[in-house]
Amino acid sequence: ALHWREVRRWIICFLIGVLTGLTAGIIDLGVEKVSGLKFESVKDLVDKCVTGNCMYYPLLVWLAFNMGLVLVGSILTAYVEPVAAGSGIPQIKCYLNGVIVPHVVRIKTLITKVVGVVCAVAGGLAVGKEGPMIHSGAVIAAGVSQGRSTSLKLDFSIFKDFRSDREKRDFVSAGAAAGVAAAFGAPVGGVLFSLEEGASFWNQALVWRIFFSSMVSTMTLNIVQSYIKNHPWELSYAGLINFGTFGNVNYQFMELFLVIVMGAIGGLLGALFNHINFKLTIFRMRFIQRRWQRVIEVIMVAAYTAAFAYILIFFSQDCLPLVENREPMLMQYFCKDGEFSSSARLFFDTPEATVKNLFHSNPGTYRPLTLFIFAAGYFFLACWTYGLSVPSGLFIPSLLVGAAWGRIVGIVLSMASENSGWVNLSFYSLVGASAMLGGIVRMTISLTVIIMEATSNVPLGLPVMISLIVAKWVGDQFNEGIYDIHIHVQGVPMLGWEPLPLSANLSAKSVMSHPVSVFRTVETVERIIRVLKEEKHNGFPVVMDYDPDSSTPQENVEVETFGTFRGLILRSQLIMMLKKKLFVENPNLQKILKDLKMENFNDLYPRYLPIQRVSISPEEANFTVNLEAFMNQSQHVVLESASYSSIFSKFRSLGLRHVVVINFQNQVVGIVTRKDLARYTVESHNGQISIVEKMIIL
Amino acid sequence: ALHWREVRRWIICFLIGVLTGLTAGIIDLGVEKVSGLKFESVKDLVDKCVTGNCMYYPLLVWLAFNMGLVLVGSILTAYVEPVAAGSGIPQIKCYLNGVIVPHVVRIKTLITKVVGVVCAVAGGLAVGKEGPMIHSGAVIAAGVSQGRSTSLKLDFSIFKDFRSDREKRDFVSAGAAAGVAAAFGAPVGGVLFSLEEGASFWNQALVWRIFFSSMVSTMTLNIVQSYIKNHPWELSYAGLINFGTFGNVNYQFMELFLVIVMGAIGGLLGALFNHINFKLTIFRMRFIQRRWQRVIEVIMVAAYTAAFAYILIFFSQDCLPLVENREPMLMQYFCKDGEFSSSARLFFDTPEATVKNLFHSNPGTYRPLTLFIFAAGYFFLACWTYGLSVPSGLFIPSLLVGAAWGRIVGIVLSMASENSGWVNLSFYSLVGASAMLGGIVRMTISLTVIIMEATSNVPLGLPVMISLIVAKWVGDQFNEGIYDIHIHVQGVPMLGWEPLPLSANLSAKSVMSHPVSVFRTVETVERIIRVLKEEKHNGFPVVMDYDPDSSTPQENVEVETFGTFRGLILRSQLIMMLKKKLFVENPNLQKILKDLKMENFNDLYPRYLPIQRVSISPEEANFTVNLEAFMNQSQHVVLESASYSSIFSKFRSLGLRHVVVINFQNQVVGIVTRKDLARYTVESHNGQISIVEKMIIL
Repeated sequence: ALHWREVRRWIICFLIGVLTGLTAGIIDLGVEKVSGLKFESVKDLVDKCVTGNCMYYPLLVWLAFNMGLVLVGSILTAYVEPVAAGSGIPQIKCYLNGVIVPHVVRIKTLITKVVGVVCAVAGGLAVGKEGPMIHSGAVIAAGVSQGRSTSLKLDFSIFKDFRSDREKRDFVSAGAAAGVAAAFGAPVGGVLFSLEEGASFWNQALVWRIFFSSMVSTMTLNIVQSYIKNHPWELSYAGLINFGTFGNVNYQFMELFLVIVMGAIGGLLGALFNHINFKLTIFRMRFIQRRWQRVIEVIMVAAYTAAFAYILIFFSQDCLPLVENREPMLMQYFCKDGEFSSSARLFFDTPEATVKNLFHSNPGTYRPLTLFIFAAGYFFLACWTYGLSVPSGLFIPSLLVGAAWGRIVGIVLSMASENSGWVNLSFYSLVGASAMLGGIVRMTISLTVIIMEATSNVPLGLPVMISLIVAKWVGDQFNEGIYDIHIHVQGVPMLGWEPLPLSANLSAKSVMSHPVSVFRTVETVERIIRVLKEEKHNGFPVVMDYDPDSSTPQENVEVETFGTFRGLILRSQLIMMLKKKLFVENPNLQKILKDLKMENFNDLYPRYLPIQRVSISPEEANFTVNLEAFMNQSQHVVLESASYSSIFSKFRSLGLRHVVVINFQNQVVGIVTRKDLARYTVESHNGQISIVEKMIIL
Repeated sequence: ALHWREVRRWIICFLIGVLTGLTAGIIDLGVEKVSGLKFESVKDLVDKCVTGNCMYYPLLVWLAFNMGLVLVGSILTAYVEPVAAGSGIPQIKCYLNGVIVPHVVRIKTLITKVVGVVCAVAGGLAVGKEGPMIHSGAVIAAGVSQGRSTSLKLDFSIFKDFRSDREKRDFVSAGAAAGVAAAFGAPVGGVLFSLEEGASFWNQALVWRIFFSSMVSTMTLNIVQSYIKNHPWELSYAGLINFGTFGNVNYQFMELFLVIVMGAIGGLLGALFNHINFKLTIFRMRFIQRRWQRVIEVIMVAAYTAAFAYILIFFSQDCLPLVENREPMLMQYFCKDGEFSSSARLFFDTPEATVKNLFHSNPGTYRPLTLFIFAAGYFFLACWTYGLSVPSGLFIPSLLVGAAWGRIVGIVLSMASENSGWVNLSFYSLVGASAMLGGIVRMTISLTVIIMEATSNVPLGLPVMISLIVAKWVGDQFNEGIYDIHIHVQGVPMLGWEPLPLSANLSAKSVMSHPVSVFRTVETVERIIRVLKEEKHNGFPVVMDYDPDSSTPQENVEVETFGTFRGLILRSQLIMMLKKKLFVENPNLQKILKDLKMENFNDLYPRYLPIQRVSISPEEANFTVNLEAFMNQSQHVVLESASYSSIFSKFRSLGLRHVVVINFQNQVVGIVTRKDLARYTVESHNGQISIVEKMIIL
């Protein structure tokens, strides 16, 4: 039985990989087809109008395309599933951290995400499709591992025994990793992403399965792409983002100092980006609450994006001779005959192709001023776009902005130095791109590895890593990474990596919830129902020697106690016991107990019956339930004197949700939940650092 | 202060990276120079003797070289530092798991390792230098992070505050990772190696620092190599092992089924290898105990290895035309004029070059029979060699054997199929190599990534991974990985990844040490000294309401109890308190306490004073010590009913060494140590699976 369970886990991971790879392929194909259609129409008109002096007309057609597509995406997001907005990474991060954001792994979310991101990218917004792919992988994983969809009312009744928070979370890690693997062709980066963003304890078997999902997902996408490109089964397309070959990109040791400077610039710009986006998010939460308002905002941004692109193309006049019209993406626009507009390429290609183009195109393709306007404009567009009611990834816009200013750095260096042979524009745009991305998202090892895999170049890893270290360090002086900002704005009780620096003086006693509702080992049905209705907690201590009705407060004690601790019982267990009528007074008790299976407890996961829906007759209300057989006796406890940091590391390492606080006599004095720990934060005012309580909404 | 601490951690990691990279460069240079010298001498003689019919003479010179070198290496290992024998990976694995093997991170070990491995590799033994490099990195990390060497009696008094088990372990992880990074040019693989082999909880900052060390180490080696090869500062040499370019190696989807078969072969061969080596290790532990015996065994193996090589070259007659004598490593031997012996290359190149050669040389270079004899002979030689009293890595021999039989598979396939264009020998030798290595060491994600980085090829990751999965799964049906076998043969209390499958019925009560020695909150000096001398434990519960002198056993209780639990005190703390004379009766107590710093506790780490060396006057023996101020009140406790698996996950995730077991009245009933948990193992006899106790020596 044990072996079979393990084999099924591998099967699930295989399915997650295949489906995530397929989904990524569908998104990619969708974007390509739709933008292809848009491009063809506009190009025909441009070609006609270059002579006919009607350039306003293709502009209008372009605007119409963009706004139409974006309208579909935003309506879908606003009205069908608002949680599908944005990249989904903050939500996945919360999920892996143990905090469940409602609707985040529903099938409706997946569909909205996939259709929405195709519309947003093809609609020309400053967004990428990578974040949404990661989110899609997570939803697929949650669905497959549970073997059913509650929304679709399907239950295949397989994988029943994986219906628990922990198992599901493990599979969601695999799904997120598979999403990264497909998006960037970075299976190892995917594994590290999952680990960095959420998993806590390094479990060899789990990591191995996550890696398997990532590999399968990469390969599936590979096969799909080999079919699309008419070389079936030739497995050589690594992923959706491929930064092109950096094979001959070398650098000198001294250039690493320039990398440090560029990392600092990335950190500063990233902090600015996050700050503006933070203010914007607060503004949106206050003033843009209605659905139609959100849709209108998206349309406005789409229109501005298109206008910005058109103006840049019009004024920049970066023209290059059209050697052979090999690439279909080259347009003449306002250039002379026999030339094409290189700045138009910045907007008309898919964003992925543009990144590659900025990395690899020959010196002289873009003038520094054009790049500067592009970088600055795209910076603010991307900042405005992230948080709109439409699925939108941040990676590609950040890379674009960074690659643009990195290229500027390279051009300036080669102009300033006498013997400019050492300046490699590819190198500088790559460093700029990673510094910018690092400054915004503040990810560490996973981001380095993702970029290493996307460039297929190990030696470039060091400069990339240095730029990321510096960018993170500089950025962290001002604010948090964009994902953490969005998580905290939502008031989600996330635990960080380390306990707070000043928490040495906080003890269990000062953070615990107190007073606490407890149950006696044999408890009346009536009281169980009352407490479950009154309290929101999911776990309750079971105690001896406690009288809930003694209304007189205990005298002469420092802290009120609630009986001697025996174990912990979960809300879901209590509800199941009531539903199955496991009353001591029930004559059929033995028979029911015999028929009871583990599955009965997991069957309803994760949408347990609310207590209000359990029907209990007035007679039954006076019955009692014996909790001893079901309570968890291995529950983790801490003494009231235990320090905040020791409790913190317990929660973090063991993935706990609650811990019972006892005194030296093993009497319950309180309970510490995740929220109690996440409630504190460090603030610094005028150089004074202090611990303050923050608001937790969710 | 907090920031500065963090900065110094980064500085240490930088130093670890630089020194590990340098050490790897020294080992590499040493091997190259010494084998170059050997090769030149033999080649001159062969060239002379081809005409003069004196081929026995170069054989003798060769033998003399090999045996002389190996003699130096083995004497050094046997007489100076026996723990330097082997690859060192089992010892590092123990260290990272929290079990300290004596002498494992001493500077003497490092020197023995470095000199010994150069002798062993240049002496022609079937060994690699990669394992020893990993061990070297770990020793360097331990030395640098403590800022002193006890052996050399140097103390730089910096990094004083990192003198604790936990900090040191973290740095040793970084050192091991840096070693892998240098050996294979695989910085990401290095990080994963450290995590897979030892680290427990994924700590973002720690992983990031480990990665930094790895990167710095790769780059340092890179710079060293660029100097050696006369292209200073050109950073493009990735690592010591480079499997060459697999850029154009493609495979069809259907070939993955062959990969599965080859994985199974690798698993079977690996299990056989491990079984033979296990028996050999037992034999050695019994019969080869004296130092001179060990040295003689090494010399014997060296002689056999040389003889085997010479016989193979003599009989194989694999000759190839000498196109242009570009490579200096080609020798005529028993071939016709104008040809060179391709089988001689298998032995005369460095093992790393031979692996590359097996991967990439053209079809027809080796006849299948030659490869078969080579693979079979090398298999047994490698098996015999691992465990000899000489530093020796296992990676390269395993890769060699696997690449050889993988190549045979390729050759057979191309002979058997009509249209053999699809058979790529590089692909099959790579898969064979990874299957063989996987079958022996049973590593998972880190090995995949190491191979991926060494081949610089992401799409090949999937077949490599599949072969490793299958090899591990097949091998695990028979025995453990070679490193785990060596760990268990030594009786080291290592904890696995998961609690034992049948451990559901074991509770804290059944695994704990009982009775247990406890101290009262105010304890007499005399009793502390007595208990410390009698007991080997490192931690003791501090209790109230306990009378150690009541010799009458408690009546009517199921389990004897030892007072109410208050906290835990460490042996090192007690010794420090006695040494500083922190007696309640001491009139200077307040003054001493005021002068006492945290450093006083860490100063002697890790070689604390034994209790025998603390001098206490007879008068002082009657004094008392108040333990309350120093004991750890946040100590983790478990109830006696707690399950084995919940205790196990606590130890594993939190890196604990002992946990106090209490009953419902918070009275101490026992203590669970790492050894108590590691004592149980699962055995299966005739289909019956049961939990048995095993012997723990260390």
